[in-house]
Amino acid sequence: MVIGGDGYCGWATSLHLSNKNYEVAIVDNLVRRHFDDQLGLDSLTPISSIHDRIRRWRSLTEKDINLYIGDVCDFEFLSEAFTSFKPDAVVHFGEQRSAPYSMIDRSRAVYTQQNNVLGTLNVLFAIKEFGEDCHLVKLGTMGEYGTPNIDIEEGYITITHNGRTDTLPYPKQASSFYHLSKVHDSNNIAFTCKAWGIRATDLNQGVVYGVRTDETEMHEELYNRFDYDGVFGTALNRFCVQAAVGHPLTVYGKGGQTRGYLDIRDTVQCVELAIANPAKRGEFRVFNQFTEQFSVNQLASLVTKAGEKLGIEVQTTSVPNPRVEAEEHYYNAKHTKLIELGLQPHLLSDSLLDSLLNVAVQFKDRVDTKQIMPSVSWRKIGAKPKTVSA
Amino acid sequence: MVIGGDGYCGWATSLHLSNKNYEVAIVDNLVRRHFDDQLGLDSLTPISSIHDRIRRWRSLTEKDINLYIGDVCDFEFLSEAFTSFKPDAVVHFGEQRSAPYSMIDRSRAVYTQQNNVLGTLNVLFAIKEFGEDCHLVKLGTMGEYGTPNIDIEEGYITITHNGRTDTLPYPKQASSFYHLSKVHDSNNIAFTCKAWGIRATDLNQGVVYGVRTDETEMHEELYNRFDYDGVFGTALNRFCVQAAVGHPLTVYGKGGQTRGYLDIRDTVQCVELAIANPAKRGEFRVFNQFTEQFSVNQLASLVTKAGEKLGIEVQTTSVPNPRVEAEEHYYNAKHTKLIELGLQPHLLSDSLLDSLLNVAVQFKDRVDTKQIMPSVSWRKIGAKPKTVSA
Repeated sequence: MVIGGDGYCGWATSLHLSNKNYEVAIVDNLVRRHFDDQLGLDSLTPISSIHDRIRRWRSLTEKDINLYIGDVCDFEFLSEAFTSFKPDAVVHFGEQRSAPYSMIDRSRAVYTQQNNVLGTLNVLFAIKEFGEDCHLVKLGTMGEYGTPNIDIEEGYITITHNGRTDTLPYPKQASSFYHLSKVHDSNNIAFTCKAWGIRATDLNQGVVYGVRTDETEMHEELYNRFDYDGVFGTALNRFCVQAAVGHPLTVYGKGGQTRGYLDIRDTVQCVELAIANPAKRGEFRVFNQFTEQFSVNQLASLVTKAGEKLGIEVQTTSVPNPRVEAEEHYYNAKHTKLIELGLQPHLLSDSLLDSLLNVAVQFKDRVDTKQIMPSVSWRKIGAKPKTVSA
Repeated sequence: MVIGGDGYCGWATSLHLSNKNYEVAIVDNLVRRHFDDQLGLDSLTPISSIHDRIRRWRSLTEKDINLYIGDVCDFEFLSEAFTSFKPDAVVHFGEQRSAPYSMIDRSRAVYTQQNNVLGTLNVLFAIKEFGEDCHLVKLGTMGEYGTPNIDIEEGYITITHNGRTDTLPYPKQASSFYHLSKVHDSNNIAFTCKAWGIRATDLNQGVVYGVRTDETEMHEELYNRFDYDGVFGTALNRFCVQAAVGHPLTVYGKGGQTRGYLDIRDTVQCVELAIANPAKRGEFRVFNQFTEQFSVNQLASLVTKAGEKLGIEVQTTSVPNPRVEAEEHYYNAKHTKLIELGLQPHLLSDSLLDSLLNVAVQFKDRVDTKQIMPSVSWRKIGAKPKTVSA
């Protein structure tokens, strides 16, 4: 069961798992499409309805994907989906996943935590009630850790203090209401593993880039979404679109912000590895899911060089940082557990032109440049509802 | 502004602050009284309505306490209370505060996190919007830390790891949906201190015992509530009522569970100290608010001895632990910051007879013995709504 299976990572994962002969059900309330409507945003790539996507997949592969349209915050709906599909594993992408969205105004901040935290609570109760052996594969984020001045471990850290030693949850320092919601989820899940014997894998994912996977490129009705706007667009995807349309790359602040990144083809591979090697009953397992670290300045430099190969001149500009974050900091995050399970990383150097810049160039006529600049401020967020003008 | 000012700690605090000539407003939706109605519980001590309480206080002292009846999850109401009262400090007790209540069923688990986390988000937005200089004094719990095998510090711990050092939030291991809600709150508040410059003090309170304060004993209409039931009654208060009615003291499991405890007279003193010495702008300050550590077995032994002095023979019985927790563990929690600010602790040895056992004996005819045994199981909690029979 892939909750959020109509979204960016969820759709690619659903197809990949179906292609690998897993029996797949997508659970989604399609609210991600609704956000685009409300904020006046659109995917760079044209995307089909979830119904057309699934029909096309069936006609191409003779593989069926079950579809449950509804909200996991509605426990009656979730119960029905669980008892009907009886999942062996639940992959939970079904959350509001944008930090800027969570910082638009009070109502979006509250919505993000309500939707994410309570939805995940419902999923945990559904597992306890309807399938205690079901493996929860939950999407967390590397952003839960923040940027501590020590190495980031995978979920836990062994601390020696005043002569005694214990292995404890790694301290979290999230920096948006969205990232905080993922921290809350991690804490809730860890408790239910201990109290109820839930088996769970928390995938603390880095920033995902790219759009093409083996399955999504089989047909244009299977295309994945590609967000480049200031709310849902992640750093690298956004830079590639900026390069394609001749917009300067917008580096927030000093550009020393360093994070873990991964190709969407590795997202789908990681989820498959987690499912194929489930956590034990009562185990709360944390994997840091990324393949390489880059600073924003390094990304800008890589995109500039890749642009040269395509004959595009790329400019970079620094814009005031809309976020509250360290712009120069130590960053060294461990990410060995998925490699040990067999992850074969796609590295950015190989993907940048093919899966990113060329896609951006291909669809550059669809770019709405009004969407590119950051429109949400971490400091100026207010209690009043913010509306978007035409 | 005391949010939750009609509750056990909130009422005592409101009177204490009013007595110290602070201008006090109580904000409360009175849901704690509603829980008693729904679950068929009642305070050992007879308590007056909030309206009668405030009228009596006015007639005795000529001091007025402002009253705002409503729910902080309703931002329109909270805005009105904020802009009308214009608080310099907000003391936030306004949360569902029982671990067993949060473990009754799915709907109470969800309610607890929704109410606590989103209510606190609203309070943070209200401070940002209507009074950025306002000091948030937030009630957390020592239960956020769990029972690590190393010393518990006050909110933060300095970690040296692979040759580098940083001071990070102390790792949290909460063990109920209620305790988890407080961890979520702490993380949300820490973020807003950093991002918005909120000034906040998180009071990680231990288990509170006792009922009398200087103010509540001025008149019977000012009596504080005293819970002894399996849902809202805390360990020591419950033991004293059991001793008074000749019910064996119910030790959960092995009884080695050790926690920090404090007299309610110290709760009100600590809150006053926090208000009088506010956190700086942007500071997220954490105080461990308790005065002494006891194991459950130690408490049972103390109550047994105190009973002897009153001529009561006290039995102890072990009941299966309804919770999921370590029953034998290391526990050493720091609690120096409030002492440094001037806290003069009331120690249990001095209070046990006066403020606890004698009160229990005084009201023992009001005891409903059906309420005493634990009725909520951490492991058996289900998704179905649980109702209470007559």
